[in-house]
Amino acid sequence: MTTRIAVTGATGRMGREVIEAAGEDDRFEVAVAVSRSPGGAIAGVEVRDAADLPALLADHDPDALVDFTGPESSVERVAACAEAGVPAVVGTTGFTEEQLAALSEAAADVPVLRASNFSRGIAALRRAVREAVVALPGYDVEVTETHHDGKRDAPSGTALTILDDIEAERDDLEERTYGREGDAPRSPGEVGVHARRAGDVAGEHEVLLAGEDNVLELTHRAGSRRVFAAGALDAAAWLAGREPGRYDFTEVLE
Amino acid sequence: MTTRIAVTGATGRMGREVIEAAGEDDRFEVAVAVSRSPGGAIAGVEVRDAADLPALLADHDPDALVDFTGPESSVERVAACAEAGVPAVVGTTGFTEEQLAALSEAAADVPVLRASNFSRGIAALRRAVREAVVALPGYDVEVTETHHDGKRDAPSGTALTILDDIEAERDDLEERTYGREGDAPRSPGEVGVHARRAGDVAGEHEVLLAGEDNVLELTHRAGSRRVFAAGALDAAAWLAGREPGRYDFTEVLE
Amino acid sequence: MTTRIAVTGATGRMGREVIEAAGEDDRFEVAVAVSRSPGGAIAGVEVRDAADLPALLADHDPDALVDFTGPESSVERVAACAEAGVPAVVGTTGFTEEQLAALSEAAADVPVLRASNFSRGIAALRRAVREAVVALPGYDVEVTETHHDGKRDAPSGTALTILDDIEAERDDLEERTYGREGDAPRSPGEVGVHARRAGDVAGEHEVLLAGEDNVLELTHRAGSRRVFAAGALDAAAWLAGREPGRYDFTEVLE
Amino acid sequence: MTTRIAVTGATGRMGREVIEAAGEDDRFEVAVAVSRSPGGAIAGVEVRDAADLPALLADHDPDALVDFTGPESSVERVAACAEAGVPAVVGTTGFTEEQLAALSEAAADVPVLRASNFSRGIAALRRAVREAVVALPGYDVEVTETHHDGKRDAPSGTALTILDDIEAERDDLEERTYGREGDAPRSPGEVGVHARRAGDVAGEHEVLLAGEDNVLELTHRAGSRRVFAAGALDAAAWLAGREPGRYDFTEVLE
Repeated sequence: MTTRIAVTGATGRMGREVIEAAGEDDRFEVAVAVSRSPGGAIAGVEVRDAADLPALLADHDPDALVDFTGPESSVERVAACAEAGVPAVVGTTGFTEEQLAALSEAAADVPVLRASNFSRGIAALRRAVREAVVALPGYDVEVTETHHDGKRDAPSGTALTILDDIEAERDDLEERTYGREGDAPRSPGEVGVHARRAGDVAGEHEVLLAGEDNVLELTHRAGSRRVFAAGALDAAAWLAGREPGRYDFTEVLE
Repeated sequence: MTTRIAVTGATGRMGREVIEAAGEDDRFEVAVAVSRSPGGAIAGVEVRDAADLPALLADHDPDALVDFTGPESSVERVAACAEAGVPAVVGTTGFTEEQLAALSEAAADVPVLRASNFSRGIAALRRAVREAVVALPGYDVEVTETHHDGKRDAPSGTALTILDDIEAERDDLEERTYGREGDAPRSPGEVGVHARRAGDVAGEHEVLLAGEDNVLELTHRAGSRRVFAAGALDAAAWLAGREPGRYDFTEVLE
Repeated sequence: MTTRIAVTGATGRMGREVIEAAGEDDRFEVAVAVSRSPGGAIAGVEVRDAADLPALLADHDPDALVDFTGPESSVERVAACAEAGVPAVVGTTGFTEEQLAALSEAAADVPVLRASNFSRGIAALRRAVREAVVALPGYDVEVTETHHDGKRDAPSGTALTILDDIEAERDDLEERTYGREGDAPRSPGEVGVHARRAGDVAGEHEVLLAGEDNVLELTHRAGSRRVFAAGALDAAAWLAGREPGRYDFTEVLE
Repeated sequence: MTTRIAVTGATGRMGREVIEAAGEDDRFEVAVAVSRSPGGAIAGVEVRDAADLPALLADHDPDALVDFTGPESSVERVAACAEAGVPAVVGTTGFTEEQLAALSEAAADVPVLRASNFSRGIAALRRAVREAVVALPGYDVEVTETHHDGKRDAPSGTALTILDDIEAERDDLEERTYGREGDAPRSPGEVGVHARRAGDVAGEHEVLLAGEDNVLELTHRAGSRRVFAAGALDAAAWLAGREPGRYDFTEVLE
């Protein structure tokens, strides 16, 4: 069965990847693609004006929408989904608390799956990190992530998720330090967070645990953004036809 | 309470570390140190002839013996422990099945704790690796270890332990490949094993899991051999006074 | 000015990348694409039968041909180029001496540029490695490369190039060791070579230099095969219209 | 010939290493060791009060002094050297401009060699980095260093030296960014600088160059502080008997 999807942010890095990945996968069909910079086509799919999204959703009735845009825009797109009864997969990061509440509100009407990362490898990294953190009480922890030089939010949404995981296992870690300069002694309750921005890197996350003359480094590296696009499509297929509510990508993996 | 230890292979890399680590830690005292190249002193401890070990154990009655020598020599040293009623901590790797059986025999008379690695970090790596392997079915696995250029056995005992762990979780992995050259297509059931030997590296182990355009790299790096010496001393303190039998380093960590 | 190219191995990993990269770059046009498994289209380009290459080159008269196939096939394709007067860019690796001689013969008639790697980053890695090797006399050297699990030749052509570079700077290195197992003492004249095959890795090369309690690791990582496709297209544009002879990718970079 | 050295900061991490390294090397003898926390002995060398340094230098007349303390203290110790005519090797980092001027003043009277790092490997890293930076114009550059959690100054003196090297080759890099958080778009002229503090890490420096879908990572890793102690001793032997003036560690290596 084919899952018919709508794609927002079609001219952005991730929107483009989603359209291309769907084009190469028989299980998917792009029913509609929109952007704030409409015109032209991506992988043979016409890019429509995002301002017309409500009407386009009503016309094309897709099985799910996939959104990688920006926080403000995502909230609008998901509100349109709630109105049209279309399940929404959201890969945008950097939301404020208020914006997250707006997404939850939409989830009263349609299924909403928001994730900071759509790769099985990141899910495995998170499990491995939790295991290691528990096994190494008292070790210092530093999180380093690397992304392409066009990424605006720092640290990445995935890094924030990993930091939440770590702090859930370690009561003694209570402060995140974003960069050190000058006379900067480390306190034991600190977790260092380092956001590298360089070239065209698809996404790398590394957790360093160090103590007693030895270190453990747990690193995930995405070969390309395609892996995230494929994961978002899997999430869309899984989400289509579900009850309204909030869902998590780990449920898709199981 | 002070643990009085005997150290074999006192002039070797690890034996020396154990003596030095004991010298800097009030909880330990080196009762006797032996080597096949006796003479001189290490950290103020006289190095006696390993041929006299049985008599020396009888004279000094240490609480435990710590052995990092070679397979053949280890079997002899542990037999002397069995005779003298001295618990034995063994860090030697590269035993044959027959040699392992000899160690088990000694364990009928005294407690024997053998481990391929005495660091808490390696125990954490093993847990993280098992977790990741389970979370990433079908991923290719390659294990790479790096040690100083004087290490003879390859791969390291720790790498072998990790390989056993991986294969216990993955029924489909059935062959270890040690190096590839020429026309060397990879089969799905293969685990690549790479032993790097270089400089004075204390010990590095990396497990690479790769699939679907993303990779996970789990790496442990020992800052120095001191971390292993400290772990072996902890094991000696823990082992002293126990019942005869075989013990595992993970029991010490708990 | 548009460079009109022919692409062989159009249905292979790299051939496909070259066609897609050319499709997204106004400076290039794919005049003809062939494969031993013809039929269908890639990025809108029809895939013709490789057996018809001589006739197709005569008909379409491309400015250059880009070949990433296999050693035997490459020799045939380049011979067809020599016949048709078409410059050839060859990215295939794993040639025998005899096959290399055949390529040289073709270079009497047309320009031939063969490279084990078409990325600027690898050229930079090679320069950095030579510099480091000279600065660290006596250090142990180990070369590790990682590629997707479908790659047959080991080590990679790029690794072989790097090994040649290293040995050119270090007279004392005289033996390449491909994997270690069992009782495997390292000799000082050894360079360890480790070929990892895993997942969908586009290509990673690492040179480890170790000595005196410190290590230097120089690593290049390709984000995707696209970077190699782009470099091969640059080479094709540069090669078009040159005199017959053999050329090197470093000339393209200058 | 034996080089007789004075060691300051004898009870600090590096001072201790220097005394131990000298104790294991026949070419050196520790003539006097001082600390602000005097008393006891390190490797059999009595630790005297740093307040008495001028008198102790006069009494023992060492061939050179090795100082790893803090900026303020270093300036005082080197002034004492200038007074007593003792060559000074300074490994302290984090000096202000004013403090550097004070060291230069002392160099009018005695030879002074200041270095942010005393390892041959770091010298090789610096050469490799310069080579790579030149070969990859336009690439983004990010520098990451990792040191033990007791290090106060960030980034490390070695990282600052590497940053100076990079900027000397790249006119377009004009701003150092120490950590990113929130909405933090990268500007092309930026170099990211990341100081990780964790466990007991002896010292790791990594330069990441990224562009066009590929990255180059050049990493140096010290196995222990011993390598720096050995380098500082080499510098002391080299500096003994030279003319007054400022010297550089690269001169020692040649």
